Amino acid sequence: MGMIGGGPGAFIGAVHRIAAFMDGETELVCGAFSSDPEKSKQTGELLNLSPQRVYGSYKEMIRSESSLPANERMDFISIVTPNHVHFEPAKLAMESGFHVVMDKPLAFNLEEGKLLLDIARKTGVVFCLTHTYTGYPMVKEARQQVLSGKFGQVRKVYVEYPQGWLSSFLEGADSQTNSFKQAAWRTNPAQSGIAGGMGDIGTHAFNLAEYVSGLKVTKICADINVVVPGRKLDDDGNLLLKFDNGASGLLFATQVAAGEGNNIKIRVYGEKGGIVWQQEDANSLHVKWLDKPAEIYRAGTPYLTSYASHNTRTPAGHPEGYLEAFANLYRNFTLTLKSKLSKEAPQSEWLDFPGIEEGVRGMYFIEKVIASGKSDQKWIDL
Amino acid sequence: MGMIGGGPGAFIGAVHRIAAFMDGETELVCGAFSSDPEKSKQTGELLNLSPQRVYGSYKEMIRSESSLPANERMDFISIVTPNHVHFEPAKLAMESGFHVVMDKPLAFNLEEGKLLLDIARKTGVVFCLTHTYTGYPMVKEARQQVLSGKFGQVRKVYVEYPQGWLSSFLEGADSQTNSFKQAAWRTNPAQSGIAGGMGDIGTHAFNLAEYVSGLKVTKICADINVVVPGRKLDDDGNLLLKFDNGASGLLFATQVAAGEGNNIKIRVYGEKGGIVWQQEDANSLHVKWLDKPAEIYRAGTPYLTSYASHNTRTPAGHPEGYLEAFANLYRNFTLTLKSKLSKEAPQSEWLDFPGIEEGVRGMYFIEKVIASGKSDQKWIDL
Amino acid sequence: MGMIGGGPGAFIGAVHRIAAFMDGETELVCGAFSSDPEKSKQTGELLNLSPQRVYGSYKEMIRSESSLPANERMDFISIVTPNHVHFEPAKLAMESGFHVVMDKPLAFNLEEGKLLLDIARKTGVVFCLTHTYTGYPMVKEARQQVLSGKFGQVRKVYVEYPQGWLSSFLEGADSQTNSFKQAAWRTNPAQSGIAGGMGDIGTHAFNLAEYVSGLKVTKICADINVVVPGRKLDDDGNLLLKFDNGASGLLFATQVAAGEGNNIKIRVYGEKGGIVWQQEDANSLHVKWLDKPAEIYRAGTPYLTSYASHNTRTPAGHPEGYLEAFANLYRNFTLTLKSKLSKEAPQSEWLDFPGIEEGVRGMYFIEKVIASGKSDQKWIDL
Amino acid sequence: MGMIGGGPGAFIGAVHRIAAFMDGETELVCGAFSSDPEKSKQTGELLNLSPQRVYGSYKEMIRSESSLPANERMDFISIVTPNHVHFEPAKLAMESGFHVVMDKPLAFNLEEGKLLLDIARKTGVVFCLTHTYTGYPMVKEARQQVLSGKFGQVRKVYVEYPQGWLSSFLEGADSQTNSFKQAAWRTNPAQSGIAGGMGDIGTHAFNLAEYVSGLKVTKICADINVVVPGRKLDDDGNLLLKFDNGASGLLFATQVAAGEGNNIKIRVYGEKGGIVWQQEDANSLHVKWLDKPAEIYRAGTPYLTSYASHNTRTPAGHPEGYLEAFANLYRNFTLTLKSKLSKEAPQSEWLDFPGIEEGVRGMYFIEKVIASGKSDQKWIDL
Repeated sequence: MGMIGGGPGAFIGAVHRIAAFMDGETELVCGAFSSDPEKSKQTGELLNLSPQRVYGSYKEMIRSESSLPANERMDFISIVTPNHVHFEPAKLAMESGFHVVMDKPLAFNLEEGKLLLDIARKTGVVFCLTHTYTGYPMVKEARQQVLSGKFGQVRKVYVEYPQGWLSSFLEGADSQTNSFKQAAWRTNPAQSGIAGGMGDIGTHAFNLAEYVSGLKVTKICADINVVVPGRKLDDDGNLLLKFDNGASGLLFATQVAAGEGNNIKIRVYGEKGGIVWQQEDANSLHVKWLDKPAEIYRAGTPYLTSYASHNTRTPAGHPEGYLEAFANLYRNFTLTLKSKLSKEAPQSEWLDFPGIEEGVRGMYFIEKVIASGKSDQKWIDL
Repeated sequence: MGMIGGGPGAFIGAVHRIAAFMDGETELVCGAFSSDPEKSKQTGELLNLSPQRVYGSYKEMIRSESSLPANERMDFISIVTPNHVHFEPAKLAMESGFHVVMDKPLAFNLEEGKLLLDIARKTGVVFCLTHTYTGYPMVKEARQQVLSGKFGQVRKVYVEYPQGWLSSFLEGADSQTNSFKQAAWRTNPAQSGIAGGMGDIGTHAFNLAEYVSGLKVTKICADINVVVPGRKLDDDGNLLLKFDNGASGLLFATQVAAGEGNNIKIRVYGEKGGIVWQQEDANSLHVKWLDKPAEIYRAGTPYLTSYASHNTRTPAGHPEGYLEAFANLYRNFTLTLKSKLSKEAPQSEWLDFPGIEEGVRGMYFIEKVIASGKSDQKWIDL
Repeated sequence: MGMIGGGPGAFIGAVHRIAAFMDGETELVCGAFSSDPEKSKQTGELLNLSPQRVYGSYKEMIRSESSLPANERMDFISIVTPNHVHFEPAKLAMESGFHVVMDKPLAFNLEEGKLLLDIARKTGVVFCLTHTYTGYPMVKEARQQVLSGKFGQVRKVYVEYPQGWLSSFLEGADSQTNSFKQAAWRTNPAQSGIAGGMGDIGTHAFNLAEYVSGLKVTKICADINVVVPGRKLDDDGNLLLKFDNGASGLLFATQVAAGEGNNIKIRVYGEKGGIVWQQEDANSLHVKWLDKPAEIYRAGTPYLTSYASHNTRTPAGHPEGYLEAFANLYRNFTLTLKSKLSKEAPQSEWLDFPGIEEGVRGMYFIEKVIASGKSDQKWIDL
Repeated sequence: MGMIGGGPGAFIGAVHRIAAFMDGETELVCGAFSSDPEKSKQTGELLNLSPQRVYGSYKEMIRSESSLPANERMDFISIVTPNHVHFEPAKLAMESGFHVVMDKPLAFNLEEGKLLLDIARKTGVVFCLTHTYTGYPMVKEARQQVLSGKFGQVRKVYVEYPQGWLSSFLEGADSQTNSFKQAAWRTNPAQSGIAGGMGDIGTHAFNLAEYVSGLKVTKICADINVVVPGRKLDDDGNLLLKFDNGASGLLFATQVAAGEGNNIKIRVYGEKGGIVWQQEDANSLHVKWLDKPAEIYRAGTPYLTSYASHNTRTPAGHPEGYLEAFANLYRNFTLTLKSKLSKEAPQSEWLDFPGIEEGVRGMYFIEKVIASGKSDQKWIDL
């Protein structure tokens, strides 16, 4: 594994590394951690990389690694840069034959996203987009139970992602703290694209809704707001949703719910019952029934589907969290990659990770949600 | 107190009686419990009423009671009939000088509601509309904390009312069960009016949002659905909201969230923090802060506002519930009534119960939400 | 119904009245509310009693009421005085043919308790001892599920009652507040007897353990403490328990868990699963299984036993609380009393309320727990 | 790092490896994974170890590694074998100059534990005993808040560890499943020592109580049971506790609470308030107050002590779990080890991990708790 981005002060780069290393099967062999070669070098040292495999740019990295013997060079690249530096490295990586793990959202805009899809299809690389929340075992269990049909047809999907950290004008601070850095690029159109919160966390909520329900959103009606004065991108959005089977729902994602952390939550109801899952109680899945007691499924227990069990490391009652969910993306990506390299058939559980199609779907979502927010038209097709 | 409606199998009539009697200060002296005189008589007997004060119709009751000496006749009338029998009894009651407690929603349609408002103003009667959830002490505490300004300006209001009991076509059953009876009139346009779920529980959610936030909804965008095949009125709705201070929000009310009871929930966020309250944990108020630990305020504790304390009967840790919340409406209505009759100034805590203005507001809500559901226009003024 | 005790500032007297009145079937007709006739009179006025039926002493009340025609006199007496004024009024009441509702614990000491049991048996009166927590519908559901054998043999019983209100030396305050009054008599050996917290809340925990498990405690080993300096009676106790079927368990009751309200909680585990109930979430019963998902039974739902349903007033999702649980004791006591008076067979659900046997059991508990606390012997028979 | 134990089917060995690797600073360089050289070899291959550093016995491993140049050989050894294979490897490791991470409990019996303490003191090695629960950031926060004195003197400590997995006679199964293997050695006196559940999870509860309260247990009174017929060691225990400051408390640990996972929980109350923490909600610390609202401290927030912050990897709202808590033990052990090797002063946060003294304390606990369980004497000194 090589890494692009993830230099000093980068939050998500460190998370990717922990996730990749957790099962002891992936090794970081090279990196271009910053556009500033000096910072890249520092990070490489901290990570005990061989200095000649710490690069000053992603181009240099891909070129150099490509020239190494196949059994020495990295197998795949993790791209953990801000959104405006997703497309070019991913394109070059894929065209050079490297598989890719990409932090979400896929690209700076829909156009780039579509191009990446084309390239991925042409090159046949394995591609993972890190919609972390689909890596939780109880989210996988939720999906399997909904898909099984036991609740009848899905009627309602409610998804929400409340955050509070952008309640004040953090990006206006005269500061070099990590929270300033995080706020600065995420609220900057030149780095994030046309969407702020909708791209950052709205896409997560959208992806989770489609993943768990097994449905596609067909129409949206969005109220998109810039709540904090001076901010350049949306920090709040409320959406009405319509799904391809006729179900309806709601999505909200906000960064100004002062006091909230990251309690992304999903509820799906069918004719006979439904499920509730939320990150603050990530190891439980609540299953509700019209005519019998609710049930609580717990991670690590023997009565779960293989999709949940495969993505669990600890026995029942020992909680797993965000890093393990993230690591499950890497686990399934690398299992799929290995099966591809060894030309063996992958298990269906291994293939269950978000890929480039989900990424393009997210880019559509961003484009349409911002358009809907500006429109007087009620419903917009997705 | 006299009662109109509340005969055999009536759910809400029994609740009104428990609520009215709880503090031992109100006595039921007469009633017209059913349009069927025989059923009215039966109910009167069960309630140990004097037979000559059990009436075959509300007209007879109001006429007869009016002719009694002032110190014998009932002071006020509780009207607990289906929506289509709200207007006429309330009009006659007020015009005959009786004060009124009315089950929500106020009337069959907005037109009736406005007329009742006029009559109430002209006659000067005390009028209570039973939006029960505003009777909970921790809802009152929530309102007081939000109004105090401690959270800064309100930015977000999320309110939801998920039920599941109408997930199947109950009203189509060949049945005389109570749930059939409840379903039958609530889904019948001739008895409920233009709205089903939006009138039944949507108005509660709407009222709660305005009550706790201290704001008025100015615009809505509604997605209104009839989910269960064969049903004649809406059983599901999702709304985008705009408030008069610029805040935005969401409201959903559904009767097809299979497995849900009545977990009405409200969240209000301001610049520095916010509150979360839900009926399933009615004795707690969660207060969240941008930069310090969340707090849990508990009913019955000494650190609450007078609005919460005044509406609590048990010491901290002994839960109160729906019936006590309902009883608080009666408590405050009767305290206000007594102060009026004795010409003494009421305490501000006594005046804190929903009245006819909230009722008219609810009728506007019903009218507009159904209109919005049918419209292609995004935002509709309220 | 007549009442002895429950004058100004009395907490539990007011609770008894609300509970008795809730279902509209019981009326307060007379009272001796205080040993101070003036205070008794005041309370009678507040309660709108006929002045000639407000008495200056319980003796006067029982004598006078006995002389009334049978259809006018009170049917039963609620005794809500401190512990040292339980025996004499109860004795006189029963010997005069009145049925009795007694606030717990039964008496000042075991000797008195046994005498009352003899009198109750001789006179055949209906007797209710207000162990409130057994009135909760989900506690009754818990008992029924355990008794059904579905969990196999019971192995473990954990019961706890944490309070914090006596964390400071309240009774030493120079004060006339209600909390001072409550603290003063409850920590005074002359009014409470040999036990403080063990009598006040320990007996509740003990009763709940035996009620839900269907077992009898046979041995205890107690660590009894006076934590707050200056206090005259125990405010804290920890117990090891042995049950008659070989199960073991723990009981703790404390009044110095600063910050706790009244979250009495019970857990019972059998060979295949178990139950968890706590007052802070009184409308839920958690049922746990060795090899399948936990279940949450909710009050008011159709899948409960008749014992739970009979003791519920509101539909699923509308919480009931402490007052409704208390009212269930009165409901079942009065239903049993009516069936006795009418010589009809009572339903088994009506007979399910705590009586004088539970009261004597509680007096044994108090005597033994205090003895064990002073003893170096490990186990003491109960 | 080298590892002793952790071969095929070993649960805790895998956990140690994940924990050690999580922060990317520790590498596994060698191992003696099983007493069966073939199995050791298999495990080594799976872990991509160099074949010549996969050993057939711990003796061979320690001998061979000792002969390597200092910059090549392992720095420390993780010993993850059953209890009866703790002493000898630890002794040899320490005497050969290797630092040690030992799975709990420290040894097979108290005698061995004391000898290891002597050796550790003599050799000056850094020693970590994996009492995992003290690695949770909110447990560290709890300890810091209690030690700060903000709650006044500690009065009550309640700790509990309910498990259900040994509710049936798993060890009697004719099986080679992992749960059979886990059950088999943990209930076998030849491998576990004199205690079953008390050694396995009782020691965790005991350690947590002393860690969070900052107190020492001075006396215990234990009821120790073998609940499941045929079992050779205790699977259940209830204890009364006395602490060195006069506080009292309870400890229970059971493996037959059918339906429970591993919800270890601790409550500590002082004069003015207290804390509640439980593993099922590991990222929250509930702080309760006598006279103000309870607070919920959440992991990853800026208002925590440095002890909590230092042991957190993800931003607020992204849950961490058991593996991260385990990894914190390794993090602090390795930071302390590095500071020792580099002769720099360690930060106080780094030194906050359980060591050999806690291990000996646990062995005392095991010895005394089993003795107390067999004794008729009420209190036994610890």
